[in-house]
Order: sequence, then structure tokens, then C-alpha cells
Amino acid sequence: MMTKPLTQEMIASLENIVGQSFLFLDTETRNHYGHDETEDYVFPPSVVLKPGSTQEVAAIMKLANEYGVPVVPIGGRTGLSGGALSIYAGIGLSMERFNKIEIDEKNLQAIVEPAVITQVFREAAKEKGLFYPPDPSSQGSCTIGGNVAENAGGARAVKYGVTKDYVLNLEVVLPNGEIIWTGANTLKNSTGYNLTQLMVGSEGTLGIITKIVMKLLPDNSHNILMLVPFFKAGQACEAVAQIFRAGVVPSALEFMERDAIDWTLKYVDGVSLDIKDEVEAHLLIEVDGNYPDVLFAEAEKITQVLEQFDIDEILFADSEDQKNALWKLRRAVGEAVKSNSVYKEEDTVVPRYELPTLLEGIKTIGKKYGFHSVCYGHAGDGNLHVNIIKGDMTDENWKTEVPKGIREIFELTVSLKGTLSGEHGIGYVQKNHMDIAFNDPQLQLMKSIKKIFDPNNVLNPGKILPDSLV
Amino acid sequence: MMTKPLTQEMIASLENIVGQSFLFLDTETRNHYGHDETEDYVFPPSVVLKPGSTQEVAAIMKLANEYGVPVVPIGGRTGLSGGALSIYAGIGLSMERFNKIEIDEKNLQAIVEPAVITQVFREAAKEKGLFYPPDPSSQGSCTIGGNVAENAGGARAVKYGVTKDYVLNLEVVLPNGEIIWTGANTLKNSTGYNLTQLMVGSEGTLGIITKIVMKLLPDNSHNILMLVPFFKAGQACEAVAQIFRAGVVPSALEFMERDAIDWTLKYVDGVSLDIKDEVEAHLLIEVDGNYPDVLFAEAEKITQVLEQFDIDEILFADSEDQKNALWKLRRAVGEAVKSNSVYKEEDTVVPRYELPTLLEGIKTIGKKYGFHSVCYGHAGDGNLHVNIIKGDMTDENWKTEVPKGIREIFELTVSLKGTLSGEHGIGYVQKNHMDIAFNDPQLQLMKSIKKIFDPNNVLNPGKILPDSLV
Repeated sequence: MMTKPLTQEMIASLENIVGQSFLFLDTETRNHYGHDETEDYVFPPSVVLKPGSTQEVAAIMKLANEYGVPVVPIGGRTGLSGGALSIYAGIGLSMERFNKIEIDEKNLQAIVEPAVITQVFREAAKEKGLFYPPDPSSQGSCTIGGNVAENAGGARAVKYGVTKDYVLNLEVVLPNGEIIWTGANTLKNSTGYNLTQLMVGSEGTLGIITKIVMKLLPDNSHNILMLVPFFKAGQACEAVAQIFRAGVVPSALEFMERDAIDWTLKYVDGVSLDIKDEVEAHLLIEVDGNYPDVLFAEAEKITQVLEQFDIDEILFADSEDQKNALWKLRRAVGEAVKSNSVYKEEDTVVPRYELPTLLEGIKTIGKKYGFHSVCYGHAGDGNLHVNIIKGDMTDENWKTEVPKGIREIFELTVSLKGTLSGEHGIGYVQKNHMDIAFNDPQLQLMKSIKKIFDPNNVLNPGKILPDSLV
Repeated sequence: MMTKPLTQEMIASLENIVGQSFLFLDTETRNHYGHDETEDYVFPPSVVLKPGSTQEVAAIMKLANEYGVPVVPIGGRTGLSGGALSIYAGIGLSMERFNKIEIDEKNLQAIVEPAVITQVFREAAKEKGLFYPPDPSSQGSCTIGGNVAENAGGARAVKYGVTKDYVLNLEVVLPNGEIIWTGANTLKNSTGYNLTQLMVGSEGTLGIITKIVMKLLPDNSHNILMLVPFFKAGQACEAVAQIFRAGVVPSALEFMERDAIDWTLKYVDGVSLDIKDEVEAHLLIEVDGNYPDVLFAEAEKITQVLEQFDIDEILFADSEDQKNALWKLRRAVGEAVKSNSVYKEEDTVVPRYELPTLLEGIKTIGKKYGFHSVCYGHAGDGNLHVNIIKGDMTDENWKTEVPKGIREIFELTVSLKGTLSGEHGIGYVQKNHMDIAFNDPQLQLMKSIKKIFDPNNVLNPGKILPDSLV
């Protein structure tokens, strides 16, 4: 794709739309909005805009579409697949002024604007006795708009589903500047093609989300949290499927390899654990609900399953403080692992029973190509984050061997009926692996869908679809 | 759309694909496959085929696409929007030989073929201690393929979601004969555009579903069922939203107007109820789970909400037989109401708090245009089935006045942030109301999506999209 330079004329027109104080050309601002949490990439936009209304977004898109200038919508910049990177420069569209929450208690729904921080939304719902379950580890800084764009998950997805399961309706600005609602504010909808779910997870390539109608649940009041040390990492993965077979659906079922927990204990303040040397991995398991007796019964069922495995003593969190500490630990794993070294993170997902096979395969592939990996993630969903650590690998091997290994990991994942990404999206970094998951007719369909929405390829170009296809 | 007659050459080619014993040209068979449960419509296909494999379906589609002959996939023919009607004749593709179920206990998933009867699938899951929640009233005769095509709901959707919430992956034959899988067999997936959810609810217009990978839940073992008589129908609707506000998510929350229950009591054998003359409507409420004590507590909370309204004595079903009788009654309402007269059924859905306004509006519109309506449905989802009864209306008024009233009902529904169909689909009968729910850019997007998948418009033509658009 050729990048057109922004003309003075166009910049003047953009300033007319958003106002002088919401247009930024300085290097510092452009660099700030030029990276997210994806490896060490920086792709600054040529100009940063901060529109204040759907109408302004529409006017910007109309202009960009006419001029053929790329537009990249930007949320909390916590993405791990490079969705918010302005890889062809152009307009970086920070949605940060879209930050209203309107909770409709009567219908257990909310209208949320895309820049609302996920945790802020969850707390606003909780104040009204309502519950918005999706809780990505980055919930303190990621935005609802980004969550919708990437179809984000989180620890509670295993029981409550991912972002897509809560999105009822979206206000969207199309690349030509037209404004649509994708559906209706209803719990059920069999009215035409599901444009809502086509937009969810489309990573800002089909339209710019300006309002989100979310379903909420009644809040629940109790939970039990336990940390289970396994002497064999493979057994921790095996236990996951058996817990479900025992008839329990935990509200979280998280897996952490030994390195993940050790590195995180060094990284975060105020959390300490006494772990035996022989422990290879942990499961962090939560059950939730309104009735403590039920939770005790479920925890007892889970314990019975776990006792069949080679485990050390289970730690039951006995206070809110200890629960918070364990969750703080789990949420910091990603950052902690990444703080150690240059890294690449893969977001593999398989049917949950295949987890032990996947984990073993990843280690074998790592040995073959000479890299160390730290694995953790949402085991209840079969979603394993694989962090490949550069450490003291040579730059040469990092550039040539690791990509071969990553491809083999994805081939293994797909052969196990899994796929490339469970919750991070494809974005910039995984697009050239899409041919592993999809055959040519499928990719052509996706390309055609992109073309319908965005015939001039101005909206977040160079994402999702493989370069060979575009 | 011009219908091309089937040539002898084409019939010979089709016979080569499916074999002589699975191709039918006789009037009786064609008429049999020419109607579903939609009003009194009959549109026989020119030929009925019963393919036995995905490869046969692909070969048929390839041929039909080349010849420009319409193909209509046919399931259990219980649809209420005319999705399975061969309105332009052509090939009626009965999927009835696709009837295998493969349950993957280890992953709590199943691979189901489209002609499996919903109830058969639910029972097969139950035998393994697993639970497939969607339960359309027609579950004894509708098929899983049809459920996916229409995104069917049912009584349990209020707690457990609709068909779309269980579909993980689909094997689909595209109109050009290519075979794709839409996604992966995983609980989470952020890998490219969501072709799976684009296919769900597309009413057989984008591809022919040949295999469905479904998520299953651990089964639960207990429930409480109660029937609540209300002296004011509007209050029954009001109570619905308040039950959720009390923090309870019932597993079913069904509304029946007085006429609905009276007509059904006459229609079904072996169920009797003693209902006071002044009762205007009933709610049928179920809670389910594994712990009886919790269910009692939830039933108690619900009862406290109900006591604020003007109700008669609540009937708690005290045996499996009584539960079955009440469900038999509820499931037969549709058939019973329709057995009385020529009818039209609308599948309105609104945010649940708007139900009383919708119900009142429907009655006002009925008065204005001189028709009687019987309303019932899944109140917990805001999904109200409106049966407009011809009774002793003149043919003239039935043809001229009723359509105006239906349009006003849909306008009201959309003004309440609802939409045209909650679970029946748009199909043949509602397509010309699509402009009420969607503006021109939205409809153009849907038309373009149809064109990507089916450029020659051979797959179930004349459905979903308004005539003005095609």
C-alpha cells in the first residue's frame, strides 16, 4: 500500500472538523499514539485526532476516504496484536473523548462509549448491583471499544463468555462516513445478517465503533478462590477438562507455568508465596454465586478431582486481601514475563482437553528451534498464552529460527482443532499465519467482506488479512 | 427473479449425483416439501433431492450455480417465516439424511448434522450428563440445522442464550460448491471476521450447513416450575423486569394471554386448570440448578416480587407429571392458537421493560384495524409472539387492513429499540418490513454480503432482503 502524505489542505479540513485543540502534529504525541503493548513496535501516525462526537468521526472518515488516507482507531493501546499501530502512518484516531456510561437498570443494559476503561465500566455496573463479566488482565487500562474490536476475553470467560456475548448493538461509522446501528437493543435477534457480530472482533477494519449497547447480569455476591500447585505441568492441564466433567463450571480456571509465577512474584510488590522447588505449574480456580453453601459444595467437588493428581497443598484465599493479591499476581503475569526480555506472545486456543498435548508440543518445538517459552492463560477455555523469550538468543536466531517455531506452534494448534487467537486478535503480527487457519475460499470471503465495508482500504489497512491476499 | 425450468439434462446430472432413489419429481413429494408452518403457504420445488454427503451437496450447488437454478435447503419444515419455501421452484434440498450426532464428552462439545431433531440431540446430550439448552417449542420436530439457520431461541434462552450462543464452528457448502469451515472448535476465537456468526441466522441464503460443532454444558438436576395467574395482563409484563432486578435469572419466564391458555386447554388432552374468569394472563416461571435449597430461595425471591402485583394463587408444579403437563400446555400454544383460524404470526422483540408498552400498543393497533390478536411468548427475553387471528374478518379487511396494522406493530417495536424478529427469522413473510428496522446503508451492506457469497442469487432467493432492494 502506498501512503499518501497528508496535504496542508487536508490538515486544515481536519482541523475544521475537530477543532485546533484536538489535532496534534508534534512528534511526542504522534509517538505516544504510535505504539501499544505489541512487542517493541512503534508506528506513529502522521497526525493524531481526538474527535468529540460521532458526527466528527463521520466527517473525518468521509474526508479520509476521499483523499485515500489511512485511519487507525486507537483505544487504550494495550493490544497484543498491533491492531492500533499506524503501520502506514495517516490519521491516528484516538477515541478518548468517547467516555460516557449510561446504565439502564430497568433492562439490565448499558450504553457505553468506546473509550470507557473496562474496569471503570465493571465498577459502574457493580454500583447498581449489576455485573459485566469480561475482565481482560489489562482491565485497568484497556477500553471497552478495544475489547469489542478484538473480542477480548479474560479470566471469567470460562463461565460467562467473552466480549461478543455481551454486545447487543453497535453504533458504527462506516469508512464512507455513513452512520449505522448494527442491530437492536434486544437479547434475541433473528432479523437479517448479524452485522453486530461481524463488527465484533473485526479489529477496527470494518467500521469505527462509537456506541456499544451491552447486556448486563444481576451481580453475584460470593466466591471462593484457590491456588493449586502441581508437580507436573501436564497434569495441571489434564485436570482442567476433568473439573468440567465433574459438573462444575468455575468462574475462572487459570494456568501458570512455574517461570510465570516466579517472575511475577519478583515483579509485583506485596505478594509472597512459599512454593516447593518441584512444583511445575499452578491452577488458580474460582467459583462464584450467591449462595456460600453451593460454593463450598463446588469447591469440594473440584478438590476431589484435584486429589487424583500429584499436587501440593491447595491454598484457599481466606480474605478479600488475599484474593486481591492472588488476582494481582495473575493479572501481572503478562507484564512481568515481558519485562524480562524482548518477547513474542502467541495467543493459541484449542478445545480444552487438548491443552496437555499443546503444551508438550510447544516445549518440543521450542527445543527444536532453541527458544524458551513461558506459558500461562485461561486454561478453562483452552486458551494458552505462549511467551517466547529472547533472553540471550542471538539476534540472528531470533529473526530466523523463532518465526519457524511460531509457525509450527500454530500448525499444531490448528491440527488440534484450535486456532491462532483466542482473545488478542490477528492484527499486524499474526496476519501472515492466517493461511494456516483458513483455506483460500475462506480468506477470499474475508477479503470480500473487507472490500464491501471499505472499498478504498483506508480503515486500519494492513491488518488481519495476509499480505499475499491484499 | 426469472425461474429457469429444469432441463432433462440437468435432472439427469442431479440423478447422477444423488442416485435415482433420492431424486423425486412426483407431485405428492414436491407438495410435501413445499410448505412449512408459515400461514397457509405452499410453494413446491420442481424437484426434491435428498443428498447423503457434503460432497453431494457441493456437487449439486456447483451445478445449480452454473445453470442458475434456485436451491432451497429444507429441514424440519416447522419454520414460521417461510425460510424453507421454494418460492421460485427449483431444487428443494431436503437435508434429512444428515442425521448423525457425535458427542465429545472430553471437551463438552458435539458435532451434529443438520437434520438431527433438536429434542433428539438434547436427549443424547442428557444421556451423557450434558446439557444443550436451546429448546424451541417445536423441538420435537424441528431440526438443529433449521435452528442454526433461523437462530432459534426457546423458553430457556432467557438464562442460557439462543442457538447462536452454542455454535462454535460450521461446515458449510458455499453456493459455488466450495466447502469451508467457518471457525474453529474453540470456546474463544479472535481470528479473522466471524463467519460462523454471519452464517448463523442467515436463513439458508449464504451457504448450506452440513456439520455443526456445538458447545455443551454440564447438565443440571433440579428445577422448580410455577404458574402465576395475573388479573391484569400488563402487570404480568411489568413483573418480568422486576424479577431480574431482584437478582434472579429464571431458566424460563413465559407469558400467555388468557385466550392463549384457554384455547390450548381445549386443544391438548390430559391437561386441566381451574382459572378464575377475571384472570387476564399467566406467567410460567422456572428456576433450575443443582442445589434444591438455592432453587427454593430463588422461588421465594420471585414470589416476593409477584406479591406486589394483583395475582391469584400461584400453582407450584409438585411432580414431574405436572411439570410435563404445564410445559406441554405452553409448547402447544402456538399450534392451538393457529388451529382456530387462518392467522399471521409476528415475532416482535423489545428490551424486556418495554413489554407492557408493546402489549398495550398491539391491542390499540388491533382495535384501529379491526383485528383480534393473541399474544404469548418468551417474556424474559422481551420476545412476544403476536398471533393475528382472521376469525370472522372479511377477506377484504384481512388483505388490506391487517398488513397496515402489522406495519404499525413493527414501527412501534422498533421505536421501543426492539426489532422485527427475535427467533423466527425474516424469510419470505417479513422481508418487506426490513426497511423499518434498517436504513439504506445497512440494507446495502446486507445485500452486498449476500452477493459475495451468492453472486448468482441461486441459494434461497427472495428471502430476508426486501423486494425493493433486489
